[in-house]
Amino acid sequence: MFLMNQWYAAALGKELGPRPLARTICDVPVVMFRTETGKAAALDDRCPHRYAPLSAGECRGEIIACAYHGIEFGADGACTLIPHQPNIPPKMRVRSYPFVERWGWAWIWLGDPLRADPSTIPDYAWFGAAGWHSFQRHYYVKANWEICADNLLDLSHTPFIHKKTVGVPEMATIPVETTVEGDRVFQRRVMSQVVPSPFVAEWGGFKGRIDRRATVVWEPASNMNAELLYEDSANSIILRLTNPVTPETERTTHVWFAWSRNFGSASDADPMALRFQEQSYAVMAEDVSFMEIQQQGLDRAGDFQPVAIRADATLIQARRIVERLRQEERAQARRQSA
Amino acid sequence: MFLMNQWYAAALGKELGPRPLARTICDVPVVMFRTETGKAAALDDRCPHRYAPLSAGECRGEIIACAYHGIEFGADGACTLIPHQPNIPPKMRVRSYPFVERWGWAWIWLGDPLRADPSTIPDYAWFGAAGWHSFQRHYYVKANWEICADNLLDLSHTPFIHKKTVGVPEMATIPVETTVEGDRVFQRRVMSQVVPSPFVAEWGGFKGRIDRRATVVWEPASNMNAELLYEDSANSIILRLTNPVTPETERTTHVWFAWSRNFGSASDADPMALRFQEQSYAVMAEDVSFMEIQQQGLDRAGDFQPVAIRADATLIQARRIVERLRQEERAQARRQSA
Amino acid sequence: MFLMNQWYAAALGKELGPRPLARTICDVPVVMFRTETGKAAALDDRCPHRYAPLSAGECRGEIIACAYHGIEFGADGACTLIPHQPNIPPKMRVRSYPFVERWGWAWIWLGDPLRADPSTIPDYAWFGAAGWHSFQRHYYVKANWEICADNLLDLSHTPFIHKKTVGVPEMATIPVETTVEGDRVFQRRVMSQVVPSPFVAEWGGFKGRIDRRATVVWEPASNMNAELLYEDSANSIILRLTNPVTPETERTTHVWFAWSRNFGSASDADPMALRFQEQSYAVMAEDVSFMEIQQQGLDRAGDFQPVAIRADATLIQARRIVERLRQEERAQARRQSA
Repeated sequence: MFLMNQWYAAALGKELGPRPLARTICDVPVVMFRTETGKAAALDDRCPHRYAPLSAGECRGEIIACAYHGIEFGADGACTLIPHQPNIPPKMRVRSYPFVERWGWAWIWLGDPLRADPSTIPDYAWFGAAGWHSFQRHYYVKANWEICADNLLDLSHTPFIHKKTVGVPEMATIPVETTVEGDRVFQRRVMSQVVPSPFVAEWGGFKGRIDRRATVVWEPASNMNAELLYEDSANSIILRLTNPVTPETERTTHVWFAWSRNFGSASDADPMALRFQEQSYAVMAEDVSFMEIQQQGLDRAGDFQPVAIRADATLIQARRIVERLRQEERAQARRQSA
Repeated sequence: MFLMNQWYAAALGKELGPRPLARTICDVPVVMFRTETGKAAALDDRCPHRYAPLSAGECRGEIIACAYHGIEFGADGACTLIPHQPNIPPKMRVRSYPFVERWGWAWIWLGDPLRADPSTIPDYAWFGAAGWHSFQRHYYVKANWEICADNLLDLSHTPFIHKKTVGVPEMATIPVETTVEGDRVFQRRVMSQVVPSPFVAEWGGFKGRIDRRATVVWEPASNMNAELLYEDSANSIILRLTNPVTPETERTTHVWFAWSRNFGSASDADPMALRFQEQSYAVMAEDVSFMEIQQQGLDRAGDFQPVAIRADATLIQARRIVERLRQEERAQARRQSA
Repeated sequence: MFLMNQWYAAALGKELGPRPLARTICDVPVVMFRTETGKAAALDDRCPHRYAPLSAGECRGEIIACAYHGIEFGADGACTLIPHQPNIPPKMRVRSYPFVERWGWAWIWLGDPLRADPSTIPDYAWFGAAGWHSFQRHYYVKANWEICADNLLDLSHTPFIHKKTVGVPEMATIPVETTVEGDRVFQRRVMSQVVPSPFVAEWGGFKGRIDRRATVVWEPASNMNAELLYEDSANSIILRLTNPVTPETERTTHVWFAWSRNFGSASDADPMALRFQEQSYAVMAEDVSFMEIQQQGLDRAGDFQPVAIRADATLIQARRIVERLRQEERAQARRQSA
């Protein structure tokens, strides 16, 4: 079950334009587009006339026109034209969703529109900020969103799944500290005077040992941000890995991958940046294939109860918060139907 | 739900021969063949012995033999031979269906055989009549049969779906007149002194403006015939488009496309005829892809109620008749089981 | 429904090694491997930690390690290492199944482990015995295991399905004698002074007519062995065809094909042996494609009741025994849950 009263990263701002973009979020088929005057719109992807997908149609000016009979709708879902007749029946309208562009993503709210408060979108203010360079990408994963979230919150798998790419054996045993504040979960991992990887050494210009601090913040429905700080007495660099996780269906998920850095060239075509991106693709490919075989295992598992280990502490806290929010949403639904 | 007490166009007569033809009609797998003496047969496509499909077997003379153990059945479904034993158990027989060849099609009746009256097969007497040239083709559509029927009865979509082929903007707004007589729906659209399309002008030898009359007749379960008459003071030509629609399953349909003309060369290889056929294929391809995305939309739509526009008048009448017949079949079923 | 208190041929012994082998038996996903000291192991193919398939992991020494977090398990399913912590929770273990190597196969027991008695594995003692040469192969069939068993027990189909390979018309009518002893079904077919096929004549060195005796023994869940004896006054040769049938799911089956002979060269590369194998492949391909279309027919058939013929006598006895064992297992299950 999905949490509906949440903002979900549904698209990159740069994906939106006059060409309709169809994407399913939490089982809701949505068509997204940007009007000529720049408005970002998210509507139910279904013409109320005869259930054709609006995404098969085309945008012109401020409207989207259905491909089947040419019926037109504005960014707010109101019908503006039925070519065959002058009057427009009141029921001829499409549901539109709160849709806010922030930090390079367009965030959709599928739940109760009265609760849609854009100030609760996660604060990733460094996207687009001076001195920061970011890169964002969409992954499509054939696994449940909580399996994807678990994977992102669990770094103890690194030496195993990623042993051919970024895994080092110590990662399995470095102690982490997990804390909960309200609906957020924090994980910290501090290492002092360690030898940096060649990559970090080159990028930070480090000559010897460094201090390293990794801070993960998770907030619901499932947005993970990991800040990796590397420093010695001369220099300090920060890398941030940001992963909004957006359910498509119970068995498929949009996983967003972003990285931001306060060092190096502004260009994504910088050789070091390209190297980092290539490595990220390889690492994500390992994770994605694993999330998918986990889903297959879960599909066959029936009422299987996982046995936890200590390294699961962070993801268990996150799952508890999701479970509490799920119960709150159920209780709200009961109150509304009572 | 299908209407079962109806004749459905199941095959072209020319598809029937000694090679068994397997086709599913209204969820019933049927094997069709023609015996040596020319009898057209439609049987359940399942050997009563061990449920092998009879269509995997072969026809010889007046029988079809199962490929598994060589058991043979006549066109009436009676078992004529069990190779391993002299006696034939009374239960060893296959259900055969009323099956009538008319107008180039073989029509099957899957419902109560006592109600199977061939005089209720739609009257398309011009197929094969002197002065008429016809062409028939099968389309397979991954959409419910009523979606297909709607598409054929709704010409207001022409300027939109078919804008690259046969669509002209006026089609959206030309008024149509819908009338109902018994179980039939009629739609008329008359235009006086209009400029013919280059195609119609060339085929009819029209030099200037013409009168145009389009008459659509629909009858259940879903057989649509459109007669297009073009005339000036010197000449008059008629084109007929005939579309029996035959359900395969709840989500897939056999759509027959036929055209008949009382003008031009008798040959399908006539350059004008070839041009018309090519255009028909392009137009049908546009319709088929649209019916299929509509079905996908409907699958996701749950209990969605479409909002009607005026141009839906004809198809709404047809749907009402289908609904009434459905209720009559349900009432009959209740009476028989009571 | 499967019989669970049975030994099923799950793998060839030679398939087992350090590379994990994943196979589903009776809907249970199993990982099989052989440890460094030669132990054959069959475990649930699912890590209890986070439901990753163990078959994605790797075997080292006496253990299999999960690919996700490196958790290790022995051949008995006990956890031997969690890399992230010193203690091992008691629930961290995988179910292991009784698994016995015999006659070239490894046999698994998925039911009540207290009932797993290896002496009830079918007695195919000639596999590996002096003077006998055997060959074993796995077929994957998209049909229910009882359809596969029926096919193997029913030789009356030979003249029809196999008319291009081994079928001769007489096979349809040669009388067979079926007898039942306990849970076993026997079928005998004796022919005196018949002309041997060129193949049998060449292999047995027969110059004239021979006697022929075919004895089929079936025992549950479904293991079929056919002994074909050919002899004249000078020589006598035996060919045995052995087919353990192992359900994968309700609609898919592992069919094992083995042949053993007490004549000819020991090598599988012997020209006569190669000829026999090639013919077997062709014959099995005909059977497999037929079992699969039968399954398709059955899927569409609903509550269809097959009409038996005399040639079905053997398979009907086998089905009765399966049905009785099924009821016994149901009764046991009720007693245990009471």
